[in-house]
Amino acid sequence: MTKIQVAGYDVQLSRVNSLWDTIAQLDHSSLFMLVDENTKKHCLPILEESNSEKIPYQIIQITSGEINKNLATSKLIWEALINNNADRNSILINLGGGVIGDMGGFCASTYMRGIRFIQIPTTLLSQVDASVGGKLGVDHKSLKNIIGLFNDPEVVFADPLFFKTLPSRQLRSGFAEVFKHALIKNKKHWQFLCKIEDIQTFDKWEGLLSTSINIKKEVVEKDPLESSYRKILNFGHTIGHAIESLYLNTNTAYLHGEAIALGMICESYLSFKKNGLSKTSLEEINNTLLRHYELQKIEETSFDHIMDLIQNDKKNSSGALLLSLISEIGNCHVNIQCQPKEIIESLRYFNEVL
Amino acid sequence: MTKIQVAGYDVQLSRVNSLWDTIAQLDHSSLFMLVDENTKKHCLPILEESNSEKIPYQIIQITSGEINKNLATSKLIWEALINNNADRNSILINLGGGVIGDMGGFCASTYMRGIRFIQIPTTLLSQVDASVGGKLGVDHKSLKNIIGLFNDPEVVFADPLFFKTLPSRQLRSGFAEVFKHALIKNKKHWQFLCKIEDIQTFDKWEGLLSTSINIKKEVVEKDPLESSYRKILNFGHTIGHAIESLYLNTNTAYLHGEAIALGMICESYLSFKKNGLSKTSLEEINNTLLRHYELQKIEETSFDHIMDLIQNDKKNSSGALLLSLISEIGNCHVNIQCQPKEIIESLRYFNEVL
Repeated sequence: MTKIQVAGYDVQLSRVNSLWDTIAQLDHSSLFMLVDENTKKHCLPILEESNSEKIPYQIIQITSGEINKNLATSKLIWEALINNNADRNSILINLGGGVIGDMGGFCASTYMRGIRFIQIPTTLLSQVDASVGGKLGVDHKSLKNIIGLFNDPEVVFADPLFFKTLPSRQLRSGFAEVFKHALIKNKKHWQFLCKIEDIQTFDKWEGLLSTSINIKKEVVEKDPLESSYRKILNFGHTIGHAIESLYLNTNTAYLHGEAIALGMICESYLSFKKNGLSKTSLEEINNTLLRHYELQKIEETSFDHIMDLIQNDKKNSSGALLLSLISEIGNCHVNIQCQPKEIIESLRYFNEVL
Repeated sequence: MTKIQVAGYDVQLSRVNSLWDTIAQLDHSSLFMLVDENTKKHCLPILEESNSEKIPYQIIQITSGEINKNLATSKLIWEALINNNADRNSILINLGGGVIGDMGGFCASTYMRGIRFIQIPTTLLSQVDASVGGKLGVDHKSLKNIIGLFNDPEVVFADPLFFKTLPSRQLRSGFAEVFKHALIKNKKHWQFLCKIEDIQTFDKWEGLLSTSINIKKEVVEKDPLESSYRKILNFGHTIGHAIESLYLNTNTAYLHGEAIALGMICESYLSFKKNGLSKTSLEEINNTLLRHYELQKIEETSFDHIMDLIQNDKKNSSGALLLSLISEIGNCHVNIQCQPKEIIESLRYFNEVL
């Protein structure tokens, strides 16, 4: 058993079978389980195996997909809580990936001015990214997480047991945040990751989760409300988010991690151009990421739209484009000002190395 | 000048002309002013008089009325912020009554996971009630404040200057919370209030605001997240909220304070029946409140609906009906369990004394 203590709560590693004991210890009036069609089918039965006392709960089901992480779905969740008489002593369990965790946490935090919630991230991405940091929210008008807040869960259960329920593409997507944590903060971990041939057959999850979640924890605890330092976690995300938004409602939509991998290639190029990253490191990053992700060229005709999306990105203050860029593998700086033409140059660079 | 220091911020009394100096001292990228058609017409010019440096801001206008304190209007506010490129360093000023303050504070607290906001309550009700406590939110499905959170503003300006912009009925409505604060916590203040013949011509506002806001501050600071003690502020509100909801979309809608005055009469009766309030005090409360408020009899046919609304009220946990009742004027107890038939008895009592 490994347990990571974050500010006000624990991240329990590989211990989701102790969920019900935890719940039995939390005084509550009623229990709700937020799922989508996938986690209901594949993950809920895993939880049920250990529910030996048959603790009762009500299921709230939504449709999977980032496209549903919005106010309309939030309304359905709030109404399900209302219609089932959830009160201030109820608990919501969010069983699923980032969409379920972000939106369920947001709805719980704003229902009756906040009820308790438990996060059970079932994807690699949500285990390493959303387990720590308290960022909750939904998308609106193509802007990711534009409506939301910071709030802590009661406890997080991060268990690799669920990875066997994931399609291979999902698992690889999640690995992008693992790469990112190493790139911004831990060169040794990056070197370890570079040796992984095939993510699908990797099996040392508990150690990897522990290292990756601890990196995030260290960063978040230094700057819980993202005043400055925490923005190193945005490495790859300024461009990555815009790319994700660009293709969001199309047939060729990227998964979040795939878009971030693309964003990391562009922002590593900017790191090389503007922040002292060596050419060798840039190439090592490109080679490693391109080995794991199937990415597509970005149409030149989309560049303006991408720039608009970046301008609207909430991480930029007063119109300046401020990116988080690495200076070497394992070291990242925040608030580096970039010109629109430099960003476009990085998109062209990506198209070249692809 | 009087200033009341609450947990993390100040309530400035009678000093709204110093708003612009305060803003000049707060580093910000852009400034937004949330108004409705009334505060735009009557209150904004008062602010503008002191804006000698012509500090620029953008107006976000919504339609007045509790009926618009909902998710649809919140969406308009969020979208106005998005469309005008509000970023994490923007500030929202909420100029208006409880609707503007509660909803504007909610939208600011959830835009980009929280931007700063300044409250300028323009009604008596919002000055004594919403100035302190950090309760923010909107109504949904006839449930008041069911979606929201706790968060603090940068600063509150409570200035009786605005009362001259209020219709007499609004001013009297606000006085209900002044009565309530006295009833739950300060007998001497109650005795002072009993002597007021006509609220419309009352002119000792600064002292009254100071006493009333300080009562609220004391209560809130003992229990910021409403775990228990703070619920004494709900005196009159369990039944009052249900009455307010019942008539919300009708021609005979009550203002909030009017519904609370009615609720206080019913709950004083319950206080008499169940919590040791003397008959003399009960009658003194009835006489005083009925002298200031024009209330109407409650149809017997609405009693079931009122009970449903109370059951759904967020203050009740696990289905039990827990009310805050006074034991004498100036002393209130929380979590007193009442039976539905007792509540109905109190509604009948109200109809009798009317």
